[in-house]
Amino acid sequence: MNQDYIKADPWSIIEEDFENERVKSSESLFSIGNGAMGQRANFEENYSGDTFQGSYIAGVYYPDKTRVGWWKNGYPEYFAKVLNAPNWIGINITLNGTPLDLYTCQKVTSFRRELNMKEGWYKRSFVATTSNGLEVAVEVTRFLSLEYDEVGAIQYNLQILNSDAKAEVCPYLDSGIKNMDSNWDDKFWNTTKVSSEGNRAFIESHTMKTNFAICTFMQSELTVDGEKFEDFSTKEEEMMVGHAYAINLEKNQTLTLIKYGGYAVDRNHPTDGLKKAADVVLSKVSGLGFDVIFQKQKEDWAQIWEMSDITIAGDAKAQQGIRFNIFQLNQTYLGKDSRLNIGPKGFTGEKYGGSTYWDTEAYCLPFYMATKNQDVAWNLLKYRYNHLDRAIENAGKLGFDNGAALYPMVTMNGEECHNEWEITFEEIHRNGAIAFAVYNYHRFTGDYSYIPKMGLEVLVGIARFWHQRVNFSEEKQKYVMLGVTGPNEYENNVNNNWYSNYLAKWCIDYAVEQLNKVEKEYPEDYDRVLSKVKLTRKEIAEWTKVSGNMFFPYSEKHKVFLQQDGFLDKEMIKVNDLDKSERPINQKWSWDRILRSPYIKQADVLQGFYFFEDHFSQEELARHFDFYEPFTVHESSLSPCVHSIQAAKLGRMDQAYTFYLRTSRLDLDDYNKEVEEGLHITSMAGTWMSIVEGFGGMRVLDDQLCFTPQIPKQWESYSFRVNFRNQIVTIFVSSEGTSFEVTGNQDLNIKVNGEQVTLVPGEVIKI
Amino acid sequence: MNQDYIKADPWSIIEEDFENERVKSSESLFSIGNGAMGQRANFEENYSGDTFQGSYIAGVYYPDKTRVGWWKNGYPEYFAKVLNAPNWIGINITLNGTPLDLYTCQKVTSFRRELNMKEGWYKRSFVATTSNGLEVAVEVTRFLSLEYDEVGAIQYNLQILNSDAKAEVCPYLDSGIKNMDSNWDDKFWNTTKVSSEGNRAFIESHTMKTNFAICTFMQSELTVDGEKFEDFSTKEEEMMVGHAYAINLEKNQTLTLIKYGGYAVDRNHPTDGLKKAADVVLSKVSGLGFDVIFQKQKEDWAQIWEMSDITIAGDAKAQQGIRFNIFQLNQTYLGKDSRLNIGPKGFTGEKYGGSTYWDTEAYCLPFYMATKNQDVAWNLLKYRYNHLDRAIENAGKLGFDNGAALYPMVTMNGEECHNEWEITFEEIHRNGAIAFAVYNYHRFTGDYSYIPKMGLEVLVGIARFWHQRVNFSEEKQKYVMLGVTGPNEYENNVNNNWYSNYLAKWCIDYAVEQLNKVEKEYPEDYDRVLSKVKLTRKEIAEWTKVSGNMFFPYSEKHKVFLQQDGFLDKEMIKVNDLDKSERPINQKWSWDRILRSPYIKQADVLQGFYFFEDHFSQEELARHFDFYEPFTVHESSLSPCVHSIQAAKLGRMDQAYTFYLRTSRLDLDDYNKEVEEGLHITSMAGTWMSIVEGFGGMRVLDDQLCFTPQIPKQWESYSFRVNFRNQIVTIFVSSEGTSFEVTGNQDLNIKVNGEQVTLVPGEVIKI
Repeated sequence: MNQDYIKADPWSIIEEDFENERVKSSESLFSIGNGAMGQRANFEENYSGDTFQGSYIAGVYYPDKTRVGWWKNGYPEYFAKVLNAPNWIGINITLNGTPLDLYTCQKVTSFRRELNMKEGWYKRSFVATTSNGLEVAVEVTRFLSLEYDEVGAIQYNLQILNSDAKAEVCPYLDSGIKNMDSNWDDKFWNTTKVSSEGNRAFIESHTMKTNFAICTFMQSELTVDGEKFEDFSTKEEEMMVGHAYAINLEKNQTLTLIKYGGYAVDRNHPTDGLKKAADVVLSKVSGLGFDVIFQKQKEDWAQIWEMSDITIAGDAKAQQGIRFNIFQLNQTYLGKDSRLNIGPKGFTGEKYGGSTYWDTEAYCLPFYMATKNQDVAWNLLKYRYNHLDRAIENAGKLGFDNGAALYPMVTMNGEECHNEWEITFEEIHRNGAIAFAVYNYHRFTGDYSYIPKMGLEVLVGIARFWHQRVNFSEEKQKYVMLGVTGPNEYENNVNNNWYSNYLAKWCIDYAVEQLNKVEKEYPEDYDRVLSKVKLTRKEIAEWTKVSGNMFFPYSEKHKVFLQQDGFLDKEMIKVNDLDKSERPINQKWSWDRILRSPYIKQADVLQGFYFFEDHFSQEELARHFDFYEPFTVHESSLSPCVHSIQAAKLGRMDQAYTFYLRTSRLDLDDYNKEVEEGLHITSMAGTWMSIVEGFGGMRVLDDQLCFTPQIPKQWESYSFRVNFRNQIVTIFVSSEGTSFEVTGNQDLNIKVNGEQVTLVPGEVIKI
Repeated sequence: MNQDYIKADPWSIIEEDFENERVKSSESLFSIGNGAMGQRANFEENYSGDTFQGSYIAGVYYPDKTRVGWWKNGYPEYFAKVLNAPNWIGINITLNGTPLDLYTCQKVTSFRRELNMKEGWYKRSFVATTSNGLEVAVEVTRFLSLEYDEVGAIQYNLQILNSDAKAEVCPYLDSGIKNMDSNWDDKFWNTTKVSSEGNRAFIESHTMKTNFAICTFMQSELTVDGEKFEDFSTKEEEMMVGHAYAINLEKNQTLTLIKYGGYAVDRNHPTDGLKKAADVVLSKVSGLGFDVIFQKQKEDWAQIWEMSDITIAGDAKAQQGIRFNIFQLNQTYLGKDSRLNIGPKGFTGEKYGGSTYWDTEAYCLPFYMATKNQDVAWNLLKYRYNHLDRAIENAGKLGFDNGAALYPMVTMNGEECHNEWEITFEEIHRNGAIAFAVYNYHRFTGDYSYIPKMGLEVLVGIARFWHQRVNFSEEKQKYVMLGVTGPNEYENNVNNNWYSNYLAKWCIDYAVEQLNKVEKEYPEDYDRVLSKVKLTRKEIAEWTKVSGNMFFPYSEKHKVFLQQDGFLDKEMIKVNDLDKSERPINQKWSWDRILRSPYIKQADVLQGFYFFEDHFSQEELARHFDFYEPFTVHESSLSPCVHSIQAAKLGRMDQAYTFYLRTSRLDLDDYNKEVEEGLHITSMAGTWMSIVEGFGGMRVLDDQLCFTPQIPKQWESYSFRVNFRNQIVTIFVSSEGTSFEVTGNQDLNIKVNGEQVTLVPGEVIKI
């Protein structure tokens, strides 16, 4: 834990007291988003201290030319940069000619931030003494509307407590913004028009190269003690427009500025109709008024929580942690648009770039499947189907043919856009996670329709890739897979990574199974797909020759599958035997030293045991967990959750709880000393899994929902809810026992601790 | 072969006919240098077509911030860029107001370039019809003086053949130059003063960051039909100074401009005395005059050839090729200054950066040992001794301690400056080449003095590195070396690269031997070194535990050492069975595909067999050559030479000859389609080895010079000369037999084809 200033609260993230050094961390932690856009918790008024300005629009990116030491064939040409978008939240305040700026104030008291997760709003309040001696009280409420997702609203209240003063209040738009993350300091935006009409203003701009067009807009209304004040002067510059209200404010009068703002984007409107779309949505929200849309916001978040909340009693930090994770996931992605995905930093920062990693399939899908209706997971799968042609192109660039598909490690539009070859070229295991998600979707939702409609083509492309990617080793008389990087990115270019080999074999077998099933049950789809992909029995036979004779590195001595060939040649010193001063190794050791060490960044063999738990016995899991976990440094945000689930499965609740705390409060407590850069969104889904699949032991086995509930001794009780095949199942676990409820019209047969239990709608079953 | 426009000639490189497309290639091929500076064969007068301007000063570089996708600990902070230096050769010609520019001339006839290697000069002549209809004949001779190595001289003759005309001739200096190779488009030079005094001009400037100060200077003299013309006007700009002569030139009159120019650098003069030093050297050379220093140039080159020439009769292209290689090596490095080294592109281009690679020790040292006096090789060894502290620092950055030394993969000043981690971190075999050079120097020169004075410390640092770099594998019960890249850069991060392991063991054993020898024979040096490096018997015992129990991957089936663990898992398709369209694989295949292929860029296991030929039987060499050569694509300039030597050793003269042609005419025939970027200087030493060690079979065995001369059937005869322990041995080989001569006062016992032969000074011995 590296910071501890967030107040524990079940529903809110709260900061008290103002410290310049915390501004960037808090900007990340108090970020707000609505799935379509989002922003860091930057101040509305000017702040001259250290700050990281960031507003982001879903799906808007820039193909920044990759930066490499030495170009290599097949290297992606660009890295899709998440773009800081024009600023619409700005409100400059000048009091008696001096700008209000918390960095230069003589004194700041009663500073408080609250991110209310229950209702979906962010509030900041303070009393400050300005450099010219005015005592100012400010309270700002801000939210990004879920209902009208092109719009955010700000209510900015200001009083001067010790004097009358001349106040200038200037809400503005600004497209002269910069990216923190940029390879070559390219200009990312081109501003084409700045305009002002009545109390509205607009900036039309588009991104360079990708040419995403947007209209950033605002409208404001000012009152003093409730009385409207409509005079303002317009300030227009090349990339800025503001409405400056000049007011003689009496002591203790309350000035209130309501500002609506946001973006109309060409993903949703014709390019030449963006300003018109902005007008329409401004008329809509300003017609309803701040209070009405604020009320709607609270109701919409209540609905999200209704389904996705997890309660924890007796452990305020754990409660706050899990809700923070669930809240941020919902702020990032709501599943309404199959062209969008779940960026690793959501709308909270720029690092990593791109929007889509294997995190989506491996970590996020289970959360969205269980806490939303089925369309959301469907949209995530459809996203990959829509990118299949690009995945085939991507494989083509690396020398594969015949429709082999390699999904990119990172993408915005289906093209590979990651600029580190060890990852781009070699972390091909990502392809398996996409096939696994197809399987997982069917397993959990019971809906097979994706496979004949879209999934079969995806599975064929992936199977073809694996078939071509392996080669036959005369030495081993087995198929081997050379030169890969597994999920453990502290290895590179290894041979026979067990996880990758196992996944490849599984992908081929699963694709063949689905081909047979679709042939029997959906003959028309089968004919359509087969004539499209031109697959022959002979080719399938070649696939199965590979999957039936794949090499898996194994140690007879330890009775474990080896992470890769030669793993046991390493100096096998356990993590606990390393001096504390050596950790985290990714900060203390050279890359050369890390690569030849046995240390594991995140689950690798164990990731395979997580996906395919049902292929192995409990004893095998224990043996592998005991072998690998002691070498695992968990220096990826995606690491603790899988280990928490497996520790719980093995009944090691103390260990499971430790991992849980680490994953759930990774950002709140800034475990990795980098929260300033933004939040770890995708790993937050892993936190959810730690409770539902870990402590709750939820699985779908033999087409049945199963639980093996346990509770950490630190907790009094916990509860969660899942949407299993359109029936909502609620689980409440306490040390006294577990109770279940189900909604809907039908009984639901589940298994609890291996026993059959029938849930009847309307009845609470205690066990 | 990709180009064939160079005329075969025993002593000159000749181009006839002008083609714009060839300009950049010829700029590389006709480059001149004198060890202290050098330049591409850029035109003196303006050329508006595609050109690559380059003038370079030995030892002057810029630490360009490394360019990486993702920073990793231990990564070098900069890449030492070879810097294009201020241009002193420029002479702008304007005829009747129109610039003379070969790119815009109506017609260019009788264009000819000659690089006279025998005498060390470059001449260009042409007749051109300018865009304004003047027929102009130009002949320019240029050389960089070996005697006065701060100076070059140009004689520029011009006649107008069809008319009188107003000519403006403006010799100039220009420091507003750019680098082709730059990571961030930084400004590399800062110009501080531009001045003109009489017929001299000066630009004082220094490099940014490294602050190398130089004074670029010129002086010119103009005559028309032998009559002096002294009026000119001075043109001065911020980074340029020129002397413009305006002449009414009559038809067929000959205008002659003599221009002296060059650099005074702060490596040789006090920083505040650079202009003065420039004045001194200008007075010296202009006092002697062009003809005198030109004559001296011819004599100096004659002296170089006296010792280093190789003659080949009956094969004009082979003759031209070997002389081109020897000439370029001498242009690049003459061994006068132990602060300098042999850059991979010499003074002919910017690619690769840095000046010192393991090429120096592994490829260049034998050439310089045999064709120069002993000081030159000594200087090359001293260079590494001077950098020992930096090599220890460099190892420290990667986590090694106790004086372990890791020499950099690329350097200018001892610090690592290569920006590709696979190479920087992992190609540690370079360390072994440095120890091998110490051994090789003693073996060839018989001079042991370097070891007690300097070499022992180097050997201890290197042995310590290897000892720390391996680890004990419980699995194999041997010491293993994980995560390295061998000389074959088409592999990366492999385990137990045989070459590296073998070299590591040898380095330790050799260091221990030398410790024992120095202890006995040079006890004072021993005490001095040991008290400095703080080495104990116990530590030495730990080293030998490693060297005595090192793991070497081996195939029982093939009876060969394996390039690395798992090599036989690859898809073992021989290079000849690849479709031609797939080659060169570094242009046709993705990096991912190359890495997992069996293809070998340059000798790897065979590099070990080259260094340690005497450790293995002829039959073992044959078996390894037959196993590895068929997988070798020779896509490094350093590859064909080693294979040529080994093919010759195995008596496969046709193969040896094919490899020889490829190495000797690599640049002249542009095998790798990249000669535009500059020449491959260090591999040129390999070409020399192909003849001397390959066809001539020269070795030093049991302290004796040995030969096993053979001759390719394409040749009538060949001869070469080596300085063996201060006696000059000349070998003349023809199909009739071989004759030997030795200089000096002493008889020399050598072995020829295994038989003892005594050479008596003054007698030619025929065998």
